[in-house]
Amino acid sequence: MDFASDNRAAASAPVSAALAALTGTAPSYGADDLTRSVERRLCDLFEREIRVFFVSTGTAANVLSLESLMKPGGVVVCHADAHILADEGGAVEALAGARLHGVPGEAGKLTVDTVARAIGRYLPAAVHHGRPVAVSLTQATEYGTVYRPDEIAGIADIARRHGMGVHMDGARFSNALVSLDVTPAEMTWKAGVDVLSLGATKNGCWCAESVVLFDPARAEDFAYAHKRSAQLISKSRFVAAQFAAWLEGGHWLENARHANAMARRLADGIVASGRGRLFVAPEANEVFAILDGSDVERLEASGAAFYPWTASGDAPADGRLIRLVTSFATDPAEVDRFVGHLAG
Amino acid sequence: MDFASDNRAAASAPVSAALAALTGTAPSYGADDLTRSVERRLCDLFEREIRVFFVSTGTAANVLSLESLMKPGGVVVCHADAHILADEGGAVEALAGARLHGVPGEAGKLTVDTVARAIGRYLPAAVHHGRPVAVSLTQATEYGTVYRPDEIAGIADIARRHGMGVHMDGARFSNALVSLDVTPAEMTWKAGVDVLSLGATKNGCWCAESVVLFDPARAEDFAYAHKRSAQLISKSRFVAAQFAAWLEGGHWLENARHANAMARRLADGIVASGRGRLFVAPEANEVFAILDGSDVERLEASGAAFYPWTASGDAPADGRLIRLVTSFATDPAEVDRFVGHLAG
Amino acid sequence: MDFASDNRAAASAPVSAALAALTGTAPSYGADDLTRSVERRLCDLFEREIRVFFVSTGTAANVLSLESLMKPGGVVVCHADAHILADEGGAVEALAGARLHGVPGEAGKLTVDTVARAIGRYLPAAVHHGRPVAVSLTQATEYGTVYRPDEIAGIADIARRHGMGVHMDGARFSNALVSLDVTPAEMTWKAGVDVLSLGATKNGCWCAESVVLFDPARAEDFAYAHKRSAQLISKSRFVAAQFAAWLEGGHWLENARHANAMARRLADGIVASGRGRLFVAPEANEVFAILDGSDVERLEASGAAFYPWTASGDAPADGRLIRLVTSFATDPAEVDRFVGHLAG
Amino acid sequence: MDFASDNRAAASAPVSAALAALTGTAPSYGADDLTRSVERRLCDLFEREIRVFFVSTGTAANVLSLESLMKPGGVVVCHADAHILADEGGAVEALAGARLHGVPGEAGKLTVDTVARAIGRYLPAAVHHGRPVAVSLTQATEYGTVYRPDEIAGIADIARRHGMGVHMDGARFSNALVSLDVTPAEMTWKAGVDVLSLGATKNGCWCAESVVLFDPARAEDFAYAHKRSAQLISKSRFVAAQFAAWLEGGHWLENARHANAMARRLADGIVASGRGRLFVAPEANEVFAILDGSDVERLEASGAAFYPWTASGDAPADGRLIRLVTSFATDPAEVDRFVGHLAG
Repeated sequence: MDFASDNRAAASAPVSAALAALTGTAPSYGADDLTRSVERRLCDLFEREIRVFFVSTGTAANVLSLESLMKPGGVVVCHADAHILADEGGAVEALAGARLHGVPGEAGKLTVDTVARAIGRYLPAAVHHGRPVAVSLTQATEYGTVYRPDEIAGIADIARRHGMGVHMDGARFSNALVSLDVTPAEMTWKAGVDVLSLGATKNGCWCAESVVLFDPARAEDFAYAHKRSAQLISKSRFVAAQFAAWLEGGHWLENARHANAMARRLADGIVASGRGRLFVAPEANEVFAILDGSDVERLEASGAAFYPWTASGDAPADGRLIRLVTSFATDPAEVDRFVGHLAG
Repeated sequence: MDFASDNRAAASAPVSAALAALTGTAPSYGADDLTRSVERRLCDLFEREIRVFFVSTGTAANVLSLESLMKPGGVVVCHADAHILADEGGAVEALAGARLHGVPGEAGKLTVDTVARAIGRYLPAAVHHGRPVAVSLTQATEYGTVYRPDEIAGIADIARRHGMGVHMDGARFSNALVSLDVTPAEMTWKAGVDVLSLGATKNGCWCAESVVLFDPARAEDFAYAHKRSAQLISKSRFVAAQFAAWLEGGHWLENARHANAMARRLADGIVASGRGRLFVAPEANEVFAILDGSDVERLEASGAAFYPWTASGDAPADGRLIRLVTSFATDPAEVDRFVGHLAG
Repeated sequence: MDFASDNRAAASAPVSAALAALTGTAPSYGADDLTRSVERRLCDLFEREIRVFFVSTGTAANVLSLESLMKPGGVVVCHADAHILADEGGAVEALAGARLHGVPGEAGKLTVDTVARAIGRYLPAAVHHGRPVAVSLTQATEYGTVYRPDEIAGIADIARRHGMGVHMDGARFSNALVSLDVTPAEMTWKAGVDVLSLGATKNGCWCAESVVLFDPARAEDFAYAHKRSAQLISKSRFVAAQFAAWLEGGHWLENARHANAMARRLADGIVASGRGRLFVAPEANEVFAILDGSDVERLEASGAAFYPWTASGDAPADGRLIRLVTSFATDPAEVDRFVGHLAG
Repeated sequence: MDFASDNRAAASAPVSAALAALTGTAPSYGADDLTRSVERRLCDLFEREIRVFFVSTGTAANVLSLESLMKPGGVVVCHADAHILADEGGAVEALAGARLHGVPGEAGKLTVDTVARAIGRYLPAAVHHGRPVAVSLTQATEYGTVYRPDEIAGIADIARRHGMGVHMDGARFSNALVSLDVTPAEMTWKAGVDVLSLGATKNGCWCAESVVLFDPARAEDFAYAHKRSAQLISKSRFVAAQFAAWLEGGHWLENARHANAMARRLADGIVASGRGRLFVAPEANEVFAILDGSDVERLEASGAAFYPWTASGDAPADGRLIRLVTSFATDPAEVDRFVGHLAG
């Protein structure tokens, strides 16, 4: 009953097998055929010429993505609970030199209104305040909800009108994609996204994160920034092999569908148990539930792993907020066992 | 005949098998049993309480190692051809805020004299010049030579007398270790090394680099610097599994011995061919040779892969300097084929 | 009727005369007698061995002060409207590598409770969140209010218990000091302040800002950070001369008393006019008033200079919030003229 | 007999008087009439639309100038003894994120050949090595020599052909200008300079340094970088007043001519004394002489102030190298007294 995080799972069998199959020598630093083929594969998938750079962590993907959109005095508008603000140890500030401007919002989501209000704090322009240079959206959000393409487009539109770039933190990109049943292009550049942190680690790989530049003109500067950030992995094909297996035959989408289905099963079970309520309706692979403290302790005692959650807004008064994360590897029997323990 | 770099090899069979064997869930971010057991294993190996942090690249290991020794205005003394100076895209300057002070030296090595002279440039102390805060040694060096423990101790001693720390870039640590036939402790902290970049990638892993802190008191600050640098890998056990298999039963030493033996075979063959000479006597897994331009072209045409080498000092007048790197995976038959092509 | 800012005034006559009197040659970079004598004078004033470094802007003083308290992953807790957060163009983040954690609060003030709550967000400790390393108080605050020594001590106490340092942004230090009628020592190190940005520019100088280290042991590292930040002024005595004249015979306190008295006169006049109300009771040299929009426009048309003010909290619903700043040079007749225009 | 540095002199009488004449209130942060008029005056002087930003130190001017030319992985080519490399405490690396590539050269000068060779070290392009993004020339050089406009143009031309920018460190701009008897435009943008650190402090001001952007399109980003670097001075008119008086009626040129004449007088006297020789022929306001150790000690004992000089190249074997700097305020009698002491 490990619902602590989707990064607790191992790699999926096909990904693991692909790694095990790698032998012989190959050019390093991304000049190998496998790395190139993954980039081509992603061009096809996104229906556009893009450039892809592998990195080792989601934090690195976010830092480099935002660095590519930065200007002196730059401020990045994001949700108050965004991973880049709350969970990356100050990396974006220290490495990309950005200030992060967190805005509150229901269900972990930015809206046109909240983004507009944040931008308005920097108007009229004055060097004293810095200037908003990018919006960063998390898809799926930290609350397991998703932005519809029209919501993304609305936010991107206001960003564009103020000369700002749009970043998507896609650590759980695949979970959002299958939830919305749209194409990768619709969920990104067609809606106005400039740079994407595309993560595969949480959804079946060991260590396979990347930055996708929808504008290849950014790639030259990015390549130097990538090396300078200590993220140019020498044996690049070991990341490429994971991505290749992950994308092959829709494996990534299958994994994501399973994880999302497990989250729904868990949410339904909690509601049906009559012993808790949902903090927000799950749209991807995370469930936020409010339970009695005694139930939380009982579940922990039974061996269930999950984290308490502290939202940036007001804490619920009627119980304890917990976060439960499912993955491609979650066993339905575990879900049912958890719900059984809760129901008592 | 791929002698371009030891980072072109795949992972070794035991390392690959260990990765393939990983399943189930485990705590992330280094809290898993496997990561902890690797740290304990390295404590035993180094005969001391140490702290170990995994990172994804050798550049990251070097940046974080040096950051742990930095002070405002800090200057790092290193060889003029050191990887941190010549091949890391400005990462140390940009991320650790250090200036690198490169000093020339035979066979890629610093000496007590050259280090003392470099330190002397900052005496008497003045804020205008910055201040030397660390010496960084590469072991084995960029020229495939090694520092004997007494040489390290001599350099560390002068560093210590000026209040400086000592870093060892051990991207090819194992190659140096078996070349010298000393213990890991003798080659590091017993000789005065404070922080080690311990690399396994070039010697049999896919992506297994680390920083070893010989003073555990540095670990608290380091842990935050590690996260902030975007190097805290979520599924830590996938690095741990590589290290565990690498260390198991002396596999890493076997790998290094093979690589070194292949370099000697290559060097001997070149000399015996009468068609080239060595730039420096090989002591680890790299061979620097001076060949006629026509021979270099012929070898390339025959399919051999290697790089021309530009030393920071004067180029040899009588031919072209090339670098040939061997690895745990180098086949003696390849070496012989290369020598055969050279001999013509 | 220039109430836009206290940095619009010229230097006071004694300060100007002191500058005009400087001739001849003198050692540069702070080694001159005048610079040393100012440091000694401040030691006497603060009743303690301190170290003083001159800088050219208040932002520089704040950045270097906070840099001296930083650790990797460090977060600085400050008021949501603090100058370091709202008005320094991202300097603290970019140069000191800190994240700023702004907390709301009445009258521009932090309290033990709000600081404790902010610190609590980082407990239990986890590298993901970063760690609180300092509290920064503004004295007088951005709202022209002041912290009493016991309030400072309360906040410093909770900071100390969590291993954090305490910074005071004293751009308007003298205005707070005379408002409280306490000693410089009581308002700083006796209450737990570690590092002070001591500004003289707004209160009678041209360009005289400084960092006061209450712990001289920090000075060696600070000296290098100071130079590296491009703030080591060559002709140091020109800053020293300003400070010397400013401190001489209580000139700085006289200036501050006048500025504060002018703010009270202005506030009283606004209240008495019956055409506005105070947003907060003035305790130093700033007045925040809520006026009708039509009155604001009329005052602007009459030639009065002041800024609209956007608080981080909710804007007042019943009028427009403006900020009026007085200085040592404010003429009571100007104040009366302003009030006369408002009264209509 | 103070020849230690031109930053030991006070401000000149006209500059001092201009400061003393400033009264009343004025907009801050550069929005005042005086600051604007200095910018217009400099546009006229440079015969071009330019943008000017005031800063408090030469280091700040250099850091911000180079930051404006930076790209990720950027390397700045400069002389091995350049102030930015040897005397700015690591500021350029830490603040602009650049690596400095120092090249040796006679008389403190870069040449087309040495610059070409430095650039060649980064060819073919590879992210590992970083990339040269700017050349920085010091005019007059650290050795009191000057670049002729055609020499600047030659270096700028090779920089341009490799996509690099050109920075001039003009801490002693006026000394070079009168030495060459050319126009400011001929010595800068007409020869290919993009960004100039224009210093007035050493030549008659207290604290008046600036960055001149020859391409106004760089100004928007620069303004934010300027603020973020803690260099936006609030009472800007106090810098502007210094520049205005300095430029008025050719005062700056008179000052520079005097300083240069004093250097020639000093150099001639040393040669004529038969007790020393020049290390390099003086072309501005610095004299580098090689004297016997006993003469150096005797001069020091007589009260003369000057610094020993350590060149990056080989030290002279036949004596001690010292640096003597003259200024607008140097009294010919002091020069003669120094020469008299030397002659014995």
